[in-house]
This record gives sequence, C-alpha cells and structure tokens, in this order.
Amino acid sequence: MSYALLVEHFEQLHHLQHLGAICGWDQATMMPPGGNEARAEALSTLAVLCHRQLQDPCLGDWFAAAEQEPLAPEQATGLREMQRAWRDATLLPADLVRQLSLAGSRCEHAWRSLRPANDWAGFLPLFEEVLNLSRQAASARAEALGLSRYDSLLEKYEPGMRSARLDPLFDGLRGWLPGLIGEVQEKQRGEPLLAPRGPFAIERQKALGLEVMRLLGFDFNHGRLDVSAHPFCGGVSEDVRLTTRYNEQDVTQALMGIIHETGHARYEQGLPAALRKLPVGQARSMGVHESQSLFFEMQLARHPTFIARLAPLLDTHFGPQPAFAADNLARLYTRVAPGLIRVDADEVTYPAHIMLRYEIERDLIEGKLEARDLPERWDQLMQRYLGLDTRGNYRDGCLQDIHWTDGSFGYFPSYTLGAIYAAQQAAAMQRQLGPLEALIAEDMSPIFHWLRQHIWQHASLQDTATLMTRACGQALDPAPFRSHLEQRYLG
Amino acid sequence: MSYALLVEHFEQLHHLQHLGAICGWDQATMMPPGGNEARAEALSTLAVLCHRQLQDPCLGDWFAAAEQEPLAPEQATGLREMQRAWRDATLLPADLVRQLSLAGSRCEHAWRSLRPANDWAGFLPLFEEVLNLSRQAASARAEALGLSRYDSLLEKYEPGMRSARLDPLFDGLRGWLPGLIGEVQEKQRGEPLLAPRGPFAIERQKALGLEVMRLLGFDFNHGRLDVSAHPFCGGVSEDVRLTTRYNEQDVTQALMGIIHETGHARYEQGLPAALRKLPVGQARSMGVHESQSLFFEMQLARHPTFIARLAPLLDTHFGPQPAFAADNLARLYTRVAPGLIRVDADEVTYPAHIMLRYEIERDLIEGKLEARDLPERWDQLMQRYLGLDTRGNYRDGCLQDIHWTDGSFGYFPSYTLGAIYAAQQAAAMQRQLGPLEALIAEDMSPIFHWLRQHIWQHASLQDTATLMTRACGQALDPAPFRSHLEQRYLG
Repeated sequence: MSYALLVEHFEQLHHLQHLGAICGWDQATMMPPGGNEARAEALSTLAVLCHRQLQDPCLGDWFAAAEQEPLAPEQATGLREMQRAWRDATLLPADLVRQLSLAGSRCEHAWRSLRPANDWAGFLPLFEEVLNLSRQAASARAEALGLSRYDSLLEKYEPGMRSARLDPLFDGLRGWLPGLIGEVQEKQRGEPLLAPRGPFAIERQKALGLEVMRLLGFDFNHGRLDVSAHPFCGGVSEDVRLTTRYNEQDVTQALMGIIHETGHARYEQGLPAALRKLPVGQARSMGVHESQSLFFEMQLARHPTFIARLAPLLDTHFGPQPAFAADNLARLYTRVAPGLIRVDADEVTYPAHIMLRYEIERDLIEGKLEARDLPERWDQLMQRYLGLDTRGNYRDGCLQDIHWTDGSFGYFPSYTLGAIYAAQQAAAMQRQLGPLEALIAEDMSPIFHWLRQHIWQHASLQDTATLMTRACGQALDPAPFRSHLEQRYLG
Repeated sequence: MSYALLVEHFEQLHHLQHLGAICGWDQATMMPPGGNEARAEALSTLAVLCHRQLQDPCLGDWFAAAEQEPLAPEQATGLREMQRAWRDATLLPADLVRQLSLAGSRCEHAWRSLRPANDWAGFLPLFEEVLNLSRQAASARAEALGLSRYDSLLEKYEPGMRSARLDPLFDGLRGWLPGLIGEVQEKQRGEPLLAPRGPFAIERQKALGLEVMRLLGFDFNHGRLDVSAHPFCGGVSEDVRLTTRYNEQDVTQALMGIIHETGHARYEQGLPAALRKLPVGQARSMGVHESQSLFFEMQLARHPTFIARLAPLLDTHFGPQPAFAADNLARLYTRVAPGLIRVDADEVTYPAHIMLRYEIERDLIEGKLEARDLPERWDQLMQRYLGLDTRGNYRDGCLQDIHWTDGSFGYFPSYTLGAIYAAQQAAAMQRQLGPLEALIAEDMSPIFHWLRQHIWQHASLQDTATLMTRACGQALDPAPFRSHLEQRYLG
C-alpha cells in the first residue's frame, strides 16, 4: 500500500521532470532569445516543485512502511532507488542548497564572459565561494553517507564508485598513457592527411546525420534531431531530443557528434518501458551513460570498417572528393594530437585531460588544494601529461570547463569510466559474437541487441559493478581500454 | 500583505501554465508520435497541479484579507481578476468537473472517427452525456453567479456578455444578413476569377509568411512560426508560438491563416509586460482576442490596398503569374459563397454559421432543445440562413465542429463578437487617423500603435464594455460591421 503510494508520488515527479526536459530542450533549440527570462522563471518554479515533491514529509513514513511490505524483488529494487533519490534530495540543509545554487549560478554566469576575457582574477572570488559551499555540502553528504568528502560527490554521478578505486585506476593510466601518446604521435608523423573541402551545406549535413542515425537504429517515432549551441541528448526516454551543431566548413565534427549523442539516445530509448516513470527505470549512472555514447562514437564509428561504410555516404551527400576515401577518413578520425581543450581531444589524449581534472577536483574538495593554487597545479599537470605549456592561458586552461563553475565536482571521472566501460563491453561482445569488423560490415543488429540485453534493459535494476560484471565478467577493468587503444593506434 | 501573497501564488500558477503552453505547442508541432502517451500524462499531471493551485484553501482567507488592504486602483483590478479565476475554478463540485472532463474526452475522441464516418447515431449517446453534464455545470454556475444557465457559460469566454444582449444582436443580423449574402452573390456572379497555379513550395510559402509577419510587426525576438495540423496561436506572451499549415496547391490559404494568427500574436505580444504573470495582464476575452485576429485578417489584409501590397510579394516568391494581379487577388479574397463548413466560410457568410450555432447551443443548454433533435434544427437553420440542404450530411453539418464534443458551449458567439469589435475598431481608428487606405499604402505603424494604445496595453484592466467604449465610443455595436460589409462587398 505504501509502496503503491510511493510509485504514484514518483510518477508525478517524473511527469514534472518530463515538462522540464521538454521546455529545457526548447530553450536550447527553438526559443527566441526574448523568451528566456520568462522561461528561466518557469523552470525555476518547476525545480522548486520537483524538490518539494522529493521532500514531501509523507515520504519518510511511506518508506518505513513499504520496507515492511511484501515486495517482489524488482519492487524492492525500485524502493531502494526511490530512497536513493529521496536521500539525495534531503541530505543537505535547505539553506545550503539555496546558497550553493545561487553561488553556482552567479559564478557560471560570470564565467561565460570571464573565460573569453581570460580573467582568472575576476573568476577567483566567485569560484572560492562555490568551492567553499561545495566543501560544506560534501562534508554534510559525507557525514550522512559515511563516505569521504569527495566520494560523497562522486556518489551523485557514479553510485558505488570510490576514490579508493579511482586512485589506482588513474595511477595505472598515468603509467602508460603519456608513453602511448608519444608512440602514436611518432607513428602518425608524416602520415598523409587530406582535409575534406567544404562548404558542406547544413541541410545536407543534416540529411547525412539522419541517415547515419537510422543506420544506428535510432527510433524516430520516439525522438528527433535538432540544432543547439552545445550538443546534448535531452527530452525523455519516450521522446529523446538529440542535438548537434553544424559547421559549414567541417562535415566530420557534426557527424561524429551526432553519432555520440545517438549512443546516449539509444540507451534512453532502450530503457525498460514498464519502469520508465520510476528512478529504477532511469539510466544507471553518468559513467554508464557515457559508455554508450563512447561505444557508438569510439568502438563503433571510428572502427575502420564503419568508416568504410561512412565514406560512400559522404560521397552521396556531398559529391565525391579524395578526402572522402575510407583510408583518409580513418586517419582523420584517429589522429592523435595533444591539445589544450578537453572537448576537442582525441580518443587517446582525452583520458589525460580527465586524470588531471580528477586529481585537482579531489584535492580541492578534500582541502588539499586551494582555489588560488589551481592555475599552477593545472600548468604542472598539463606539462606532465601532455607536454603543453598553459601558463597565463586561463581561457584554454583551468577556465575552459563549465563543471566547476556551478559546483559539479565529481562528474569528470564519468568520461573516462565511460571510455573504459565501453571498451570492456566491446571486448565482451566480441568474445560472444565474434569480431566487430564482421558485424559492422554485414549487420549491426546483433551489436544493438547485445547492448539492449546487457545494458539498456537493466536500467538501474543492478548497481554498476553487478551490471558490468554480468555483462563483461569484470566490474571495472582498464585492460580492454588499453588493448583497444594499442591495437587501434599502434596495431 | 495578503495581496502580495496572492500575487506570488498567481505568478507560480502562471509559470506552470507557461510550461503547459510550451509543451502543448511542442506536442502539436515537434513531438514524434510515439511521445504522445507520456506527454499526455505529463500534461494531465500539470493540469491537476494548476487546478490545485487555484483551489488552495489559503486563497479564500487571502482574498478576504486583501479586500481590506489599501490597494492602488490597478491592484484592486488585479485582485478582482484573480478572484474571477479562483471563482471559476471553484464553482463546480470536483466530481462534476471530473465527470465532465471524462465525458468530454470520450466524446471528442470518438468524434474524431465518427465525423468522417458520418455516424450521428454513434455520436448521439456520447453527446447526450456531455450535454447532460454541461447542463448540470451550467446550473451550478448559474446559481452561484446569479445568471441564466447559458449566460453562466458565456461568462467563461466573454465576461459580462449576456444572451439578453446577444439575442437582439443576432435578431438584427438575421434581418439583413441573408439578404446581403444574396445581393453580394448576385453582384459577384460572372466576375472573372483566376486561380493561382501551383505547386507552391512549402519553403517559399514559409518565407513569404515570415515576410508578411514582419510587415505586420510580429516580434521575432518573442515568438516564432511553425507548422501544425490545426493552426493556432500558442505559447506565452513573451514567446508567442504561431502555427499554420501549408497546401502545396494553394498559397492563398496559409498566407491568410498566418495573418489571422499574427493578429492574435500581436495582441499577446502587446500585453503589458509588468502585468503578464497575473490574470489581469491576460487577454480580456475570447471575443476581444478574435477581434485582433479578424482586424488583421479582415479589416487589414483583405483591404484592397493591402492586397495590392501582397501581389508583388507573391510575384517575388513564386514568380509572376496573371492570378497574382492585385485585382484578381482581391476578388479571390473577397469571394462570397454559402458553404457547409464554418471554418472555410468567407467574411460575409461566416456570421450566419454563428447565428445558427448560437441559437442551437443556447436552446440546448436552457433545455429547450434536446440532443436528438439537433440535426433537424441544424437542417432548418442552414436552409433558412444559407439556403443549403444538409439533410443526412452530419459530417459537414452538426458534426463538423469540435466545440460541443467536449462541452465548450458558449464559445461560438466570440467569433462574431470579434468580427463586430474589429469593425468598430476600424471605424474608430479611421475617425481618428484618417482612411485605412492611406495608412496601409504608406506606413502601418500608426495602425498598430492605435491598437496597442486602445486594446493591447489594457489587457484585463477594464471590462470589455469599458474597453470598447473608451476605444470606439460604443460597447458593442453591429452597425460598423454592417457598413463595412456593405461597403466592401456592394460598394
């Protein structure tokens, strides 16, 4: 009885979140600029309502009563995930939530102009306030959850993950990644590279993107593709709103961006329909979500056999040119070059950007690093991991990401966890189905079927470690990721 | 103090309605079909929340206390409009609201297939239930408001309007309109008419529509144009979402549809920014809203001088053809022909469709006509007003409109009130600014300025009678409408 009340309550919350997801998508894709103020106010009222729904005083009693009720195993798991959402919403004193939200908005808003101005000094006091409040929040969460401060933040994005597991993981990466980057650069030196010659009309890029989405099994009855300044995968599972941005001079970027977001989208579309309105029916974690986008983008789409399928599509949509030759495209899509900007990084250097951010944010939250010392640490680590000098270039250095400006500490590891999970999934899949190469060349449906069976349909019914162990035989194992990189880039 | 609490409460309601308006627009324009079920559920949860917000038990006390507070005149009016919204939401027993909503949904849903099937017998029992519940609702409203049953429904759409005013109005129309229709047909007989030859590419029709919207002062910083199966003007005042539908074979219809919706849109965009979040800052009534769309469509856009400005735009967008000659376009856009379908009717026969519906719905609600006798009455009146035989053709007869299927009795008069108000406004405007012809030919901004000053900026700060009297010297006066028709069609 109490369980049923909880289900109804969380379904209502889901409906409110649905409205927020669609209006958020609209804000990024359709809304004329003059509508922004009213929209922001409407969404803020909705956020308050959602928060209130999760703080309803009834919930404590209902949870206590539901725990005594005879529940099927799936219901018990459902209950656990509702409790997790409730706990997350009630851990912090309301005043701290409000202060953090305000300071985060203020800092993020200022960052939008301070970053282009390279103004670290202007950013610092705002950031110090965000960091200070984030540390307080981490302390409160840590105490309630019995975790370290940083782990209590990690728990928000990657439940069950701990720095005790991440420290050796990144230590390991630190051991072999910089060397690998050097070797790959050495190997790629002097390789012939032809850049495709534009312009590439936006409408044709979109038509190509839609065709590739169909090839990748995106369900257009439950989703669509649009344009936004910052690509994302939004909407709701029943109606996934994927976005990209086009550059008339470069066809390769938007295409790969669409493929990346299609990975996120298929995960969402593949979540079990019967559970979608409850927390247990949501995506397992940000790392698992990223594993799906990176499976599509890295394991699948940058595979030479997939690129060989892309090449004739480019010919068809834009007319043939030498740069569209499969070999050349493959070289373009696997070019490794250390750079300053994380979001522009290739598959091999990307984890170095994350290693650096992980160390820094962990130390910031644990009180081992102060905000004012961030640029110096950044410069040191960029030098160490990627051999790049970033001194004085805050804009393309420690000011480049949005995450810390609004207090989203603990998120960054998800990117590399996703890359590792994706490599584990690809390895397990190949043990079961044979080489990806043959599947990509002939029929990709067994690939998607495997992902549905092993990842998508499980939503949050298992913890990530169980999910990955059942799917791949190992909870978290960087070895397949290393093999994948070595084989693709040095093989 | 209580007034301030009320303002905050109604602003929250406005924010919720904002989310509903955008998600409703999305449902009609952007949403893939598979998203509909989840969207319907989310919007239904939102409707419950909005209703709950209007039924908050605090409101009664706050209203009582606010009436004792020292309020500025604008605040006192604001209070009155909040009370009106509250009263409307609390007049009916919850159970009746629920039953009516269910019966209405059921009947409307069935109507979508029964209408094409011409199945009056299948429709009748569903409609009887809607009518029965609508009569109960009208009785409850009538008792609470001290009005007749039909007037209590009219009050929802056209506050202050009564059948004691509408009866003589439509009696008057009945006296001269059928004769006028005959005379116009006689005059137009044998007039040369060239139909434009398509196809007209959708993209070009859209470009033309956008150009005409700009010409009419639509603010694209606060709105946009899209496509939906049934054109509407939605969104919120800060972000007006206007839609149309295109027919590749006919460029004239979508263009005039866009102009009509632009009239609605400019009213919304012109509402006073400071009051937008409160009921007093909303559009005055459906009749006044319709007066703006009809001012744009009928008074302005079908004016021969405006058509002379449209003609070269059609040439530019589609290449010249003889049918685009201004004289021919003007004849096309003012062609009068009695027809079965209200939404396809021309400016002159349209009020006959409304006269008929007004008489029927008034008698249905007052218990003077039963549902089973509707087709017979329909046939009689169509014969009498438009000389058309509709016997047995329910599809294009009494089954053609959506309004009665979901219990929206009392809405129909708004269309003719709108046409009359628009003619009054045009007459008053010309007394003050000189002939429309000169303004349209040279600079239309004084026209829009007049509408802003006299209609838009007053939102719901005055009742309709005061608004119209101050703007035009008369509360409701059909004489300018008659003069307008006689001058345009017989002059």
